[in-house]
This record gives sequence, structure tokens and C-alpha cells, in this order.
Amino acid sequence: MAETERARFPTLHQTVNDHPLVYLDSAATSQKPDVVLDALTSYYSTINSNVHRGAHSLSAAATEAFEAARDAVADLIRAPSRAEVIWTRNASEAINLVAWSWGTANLGPGDEIVVSVMEHHSNLVPWQLLAERTGAVVRAVPLTAGQEYDVGALQTLLDGGKVKLVACSHVSNVLACVNPVADITAAAHAAGALVLVDACQSVPHMPVDVTALGADWLVASAHKMCGPTGVGFLWGRTELLNAMPPFLGGGEMIQDVFLDHSTYTGLPHKFEAGTPAIAEVVALGAAVDYLNGLGMPTVAAWEAELGAYLYDRLTAFAQVTVYGPPTHRAALCAFNIEGVHPSDLATFLDLEGIAVRAGHHCAQPLHRELGVDGSARASLYLYNTRAEVDAFVDALVAATELLGVTLTPRVPAASA
Amino acid sequence: MAETERARFPTLHQTVNDHPLVYLDSAATSQKPDVVLDALTSYYSTINSNVHRGAHSLSAAATEAFEAARDAVADLIRAPSRAEVIWTRNASEAINLVAWSWGTANLGPGDEIVVSVMEHHSNLVPWQLLAERTGAVVRAVPLTAGQEYDVGALQTLLDGGKVKLVACSHVSNVLACVNPVADITAAAHAAGALVLVDACQSVPHMPVDVTALGADWLVASAHKMCGPTGVGFLWGRTELLNAMPPFLGGGEMIQDVFLDHSTYTGLPHKFEAGTPAIAEVVALGAAVDYLNGLGMPTVAAWEAELGAYLYDRLTAFAQVTVYGPPTHRAALCAFNIEGVHPSDLATFLDLEGIAVRAGHHCAQPLHRELGVDGSARASLYLYNTRAEVDAFVDALVAATELLGVTLTPRVPAASA
Repeated sequence: MAETERARFPTLHQTVNDHPLVYLDSAATSQKPDVVLDALTSYYSTINSNVHRGAHSLSAAATEAFEAARDAVADLIRAPSRAEVIWTRNASEAINLVAWSWGTANLGPGDEIVVSVMEHHSNLVPWQLLAERTGAVVRAVPLTAGQEYDVGALQTLLDGGKVKLVACSHVSNVLACVNPVADITAAAHAAGALVLVDACQSVPHMPVDVTALGADWLVASAHKMCGPTGVGFLWGRTELLNAMPPFLGGGEMIQDVFLDHSTYTGLPHKFEAGTPAIAEVVALGAAVDYLNGLGMPTVAAWEAELGAYLYDRLTAFAQVTVYGPPTHRAALCAFNIEGVHPSDLATFLDLEGIAVRAGHHCAQPLHRELGVDGSARASLYLYNTRAEVDAFVDALVAATELLGVTLTPRVPAASA
Repeated sequence: MAETERARFPTLHQTVNDHPLVYLDSAATSQKPDVVLDALTSYYSTINSNVHRGAHSLSAAATEAFEAARDAVADLIRAPSRAEVIWTRNASEAINLVAWSWGTANLGPGDEIVVSVMEHHSNLVPWQLLAERTGAVVRAVPLTAGQEYDVGALQTLLDGGKVKLVACSHVSNVLACVNPVADITAAAHAAGALVLVDACQSVPHMPVDVTALGADWLVASAHKMCGPTGVGFLWGRTELLNAMPPFLGGGEMIQDVFLDHSTYTGLPHKFEAGTPAIAEVVALGAAVDYLNGLGMPTVAAWEAELGAYLYDRLTAFAQVTVYGPPTHRAALCAFNIEGVHPSDLATFLDLEGIAVRAGHHCAQPLHRELGVDGSARASLYLYNTRAEVDAFVDALVAATELLGVTLTPRVPAASA
């Protein structure tokens, strides 16, 4: 798949520091295929207009393209209704929307919000801010010994009887583990708690079905799934979204405005104040069409193969620690090398044209739990190749050597 | 200016319903010049990467382009500091940010928020929602007999001693009046109130200087100023922004995150949670560079000339009522024709390739005050020509005739 598809991604065909670019930072943001760039250019060159308000032809065409993208996303995540898909700037805003609207209206002193130690800051800070203003308490599910989500520990927290909300990632952007969301939602619902799923690292990479997951809300960002920056989405169950008070006020979300009060329109526009990210939504629609054309099972299969290869190559070195479980992993590896600072490593790799990320990856509590300040991370997408993984590992060996550490083969543990 | 510049706007060179497009809906959204489309394509084809977090070359280049756009916008509005420019999705979100963050922290029962009857819904609904949650009261400045902002009435409201905030538009999107913002801010500050200025209809069209206006906050949207959808900005005075609590939580806006609490970074990132609208911000920078290349005084001069021509041509008909004052107008006319429904008119004009808007233009209270349900609106930008105004008026006469109303010359009022 990667060999044929990478021709469609213009960014990938360049040299960086006189070396062919090897882009291994797709967990931060993905590159964009030609069809997405074409959708942006075509939108702005032909039908650019404000939506939902116009009697003229351009406005009608823009509205049609804009709403067609909602259908595409609803279909991608198997949403029961297109009106359940709300456009936001990014996944962070989608989480904040739920925290401000649902959270402020429904939580009070002593109520508990359960996060996990592996959450991205975007799935921690909004809940902390919510707790501050309501008197609710944030509790965290720890890792298992195998560095996975500890469902048993979640159950213990739920048994306390005070949990109103569980916020969890579908796939960790550091540990790469695919969390047992269906088990988490079943346990939470049995305890009367609702569940918000951060699907930023799953929706771009594998089939996702909101009903099968049992989620109450699910969020993702376009820019990680071949789409543009500036748009993400919140999916939520109709009855929950209907019961939530408005968050941002303005045009698009009103029914009638008077000087002293207003009435609000229904889903999905109730939560979409002001002129939306029209071109970005249209281009996200093109990204979804592109992914559907490939088939999400096909994307997932390629990434499973390539991700396993990356994991195997890195764990073959005695000095390398890759975080997270050995199997059921997404196609990314966050790692550290004994005696090497991850930032130094990333800088040396960049000189060879290899783009990896170094730092806390917006997961400071997780790194604290892992006993490190940060890590290096190589993250793959559908356009990455086995040859790129090899180039990365070769450069890693050379860079590490320059940094004074010689990588050697891991000695297999003696079998019993 | 228009004749030379319109070549740079691809959207303008098409036929709609077999007629050359005459786009007179720029107050809803502007068309985009080639340099803005090129900036988007170039960004996504060469340096697309997440910002502020990366050790690799693409991330550094993306961050540089992203932050350069902040410099451009700060310079455009004469902001004392670049850190005072906060990226939002649109102007609506920028107003909501102030309402949620500053408003919730600073208003209480009995405090007054003063809007005006001419405000866009985006500058009404956020304040109504704020009033609901704090017990504050929204009061509205009426129109003068000449359909302008009534500064005397504002003074009376301020004299009551309870006003904490005045929210006003710089230019009305219906009345076209340029409001005396410097007078409004002087009066408000003398009474101890702060002022938020909705500059959506001024920043794209004329020189704007936040300090000369005396504004405390000012908001605008990129898509109305030759830029892309999906991005707008909040400008605020440093000391106000510093004192405001965080609004949206997530990546980018934090300093250190722990499981139970977090600390926040400084301006401007404190209010920019999650991956921002990177490509859109970069393209907005290109739009600002384009406008600066033309010179905002030059843009304003052309629009003053063309806007006066439009106003004169429409008011020459006895059956046409154009709203707002006769002079000191922006280049748009909202109007009604006796016996003609504005939606019918817009539909007939669209058949001739002429794009105008019909409805309440997100200003229901104003239309109620004007005694009508809605109006038709023709709004101009730097790329519109005198020939287009003529084509519009010719088509208006024909469409009105088809709708059963014959336009006749206005008989001049007898001089005294």
C-alpha cells in the first residue's frame, strides 16, 4: 500500500538536510494526499461562500459540500445519526465542549471524573478545570505491570459509587496500546458513569464503530487523518447532545435572537457558533473519502505489519526501551536509549532527514510514571515503508554511536 | 484597483447560471487571492508539521511560518505586542472566549453588559449566556433617528454606574455605519467599563489601530479579509489577558501537567489549546501581506468611492429603502423594496449570476427595530467594480419588474 500511495503525498518527496525525508511523526500530524489539497484549492477557487445563510448558488453549493462531509464522517465512525457529528477546531476543543457544557451542568462537589495516567494533556486539563469550578475530583487509572490500561483498577474506582465520567484514550500516543474501550464503557455504564473516548490515534488508523465501542462521546482531529488543520469533531449520542446546554453563542446556533434572550437551533448546529471551518470540513470530507477508498481494514493491516516490524527492530537492541505492551500495538514506538537524551537523538536524526519527535508528547504524567522526562517517538502511517524503517534504524545506530553509545543485540531471556 | 486585483481571485472568473458571476456577498465571506491559495498549497506540500513541539526541520519551519503570521496580524492592527494576538476559530469564538474567561470571573448579579441593537448575533448571544450564568443584565444602546449608534444613550446607561462591559461593532454589517468607537471607549473607560470591539467588518476594509480606538479587546475573522475559513483572532491588552483564567485546556497552553493539577504557559499560547489551525494561520499571514501590499488606506479609498456609488444608485429609486446613515458608510447596502420579498429578489438575481444575501444577516433584533423581517444586502470588497454595481442595479430593476414592482426615480425632497 505505502509504495503506491506515497506518490499522492507531495510533502514526502523532498530532501531535508540533503537526505530524502523520512517522516515518522504522523502521530503529531499526518501528511496530506493530493485529493485533500485539490479539495481545498477547488473549494476556494469555485464555490467559496458562507454556508446555511445564502439564497445564491455559491452558498448553496458550499453548504452542500460542507454537509456532505458530515455524512462522510458519520459513516466512517458508524454514527447512528449525522446530526451527532459536531465540527470543532480540534479534538481538544471537542473535549472542552463536553467539559464546559455537560460537565458544568452535571457535576458537583464530590463527584468523580476518572482519567488514566496515559492520557494526553487534552484529555486531562479540561477535566481538571472542570473539577476546579464544580468541586468534582479527578482520579486516575494507573498502568498495569505490562504498561496497559488497568481495567481492574477502573472497576475499583467505579465501585466507590461516585464516578460520573470516565475519559479515556482509544490508543495511547506514547504506549501505543489499544485500550479495551468496550470493556471500559461496559464497566462504566454498569456503574452509572458516562464515557468520553479520545480517538485521535485510532480513527486515522483503524475501523472505529462508536456503537460497538459503547462510547457516549468520541473525539478526533482531522489533521491526524490526512485532513487539514483547523477542524476536528465531537460525536455524541443524540439524547446527551440534546440535553447539553449551548457552549459558544453566535450565528448558526440560534433559532431566534432577542435583545434579552435567544432560542437555539437543534443538532448539529446548536454547537457550531459562527462561520465554521468550511473549506477545512470539505477537505476533511475528501480525506475520509480517500481513507474509505483504501479501506480502513487495509490501512490497519498494513500498519499492524509495519508497526510490528518497527517494534521488533527497536527491541532487538539491548540499550533500547520501547514503552507499552509487546502486542496489540498501534504503529508507533516511543522509546529511550540508555545514556542518550531523546532531544539529542532527534536532532541527530534530523540531520539525516529523519523526522521523529522528542519530548513528553503532551503526556507529562505518563512520562513521570515511566520514570523519565521524555522519550523519542517514531510514528507511522499508511504511507511509510519498510525501507523507511530500515533507514531510520540505520541512522539511529549511527547517531547513537556519535552520541557515545554503541547499540548491541539484546540477549534473549533464557527459556525456563 | 479592482480591475487589476480581480485577476488574482480565481473564484470571480466563472459563470453562474450562464452569466458572469457578480459576487456581492463579501460581508458574509470574502473571496481569496491566488497568494492565499498558494500559501495553503505550499504549506501542505512542503513544511506541514505540528508546531512548537518538534525537534525536526519541518516542525521548525512550520512554527516559524505560524508565528510570522502573528507578527503580521499584530502589525496590521497596530498591537503593542505580538503576544496579544490569540488565534481562535472565528470572531465568534474570540467573543465567547472573553465572555467565558473574563466574564465569568468578573461579573456578578446586577452588573450590566451594554450591547447595541445593531449587534451581530455573535456579539449578543455570548453576553446573554454570560448574563444567565452570572446574574448580570444585558442592556442595549438604541439607534439614533438617523440609524446610527446612539452615544448619548450609551452615556445614560453608563451613568447608572453598573456597567462593567460595553460590546460594540466597529462597522454594522447591516446599517454600514462606522461607529464612533474612540468616543465609546472614552465614555466607557470614564465610567470604569471595558470595551470589546467586533471589528469583523472593519479590519478587512480600512486601517484599524487598536490603541487609537482605545479598545480593550478586538476580534475579527480571517475569512472576511481574504484569508481562509477556520481562523480568527482575539486581540486584548496584555494586562487583561494575563489576568484572565484559562478557557480551553489541553496541549500548547500548559507549562506542567500533573494528574491532579496543571500550570499554564504565558501569552499567547495560554489561550490556544490543542493543535492550532496551522495552515489557516499561515494563509492568513499571506492575506495580511497581500492587503498590506495594496495598502489599507488605498483599499478604504476605493471602497468609499464604490460604496457611495452603490448607495447613490439604490437610493435613486423611490421604492428602495437603504438602511443606515447616508454618509460615513462602509461599502455595503442592506435594503428593502416596497412589495418585494428580499428572498425572492435574491433568487431572481442569482438567476442572473448576481450573488447577494437575503435574510436577517445574523441581526434579528436590528431588523425587528427596523420593522422588517429581513433585508437584501449587497456588500462590496476591493475586487468589485463600478461595472458590477451597474450590472447589479440593471438586474435589480429587471427582477423587481418580474416581481410586479416597477422602480421609479425618487422625487427629490423640495428644498426649504
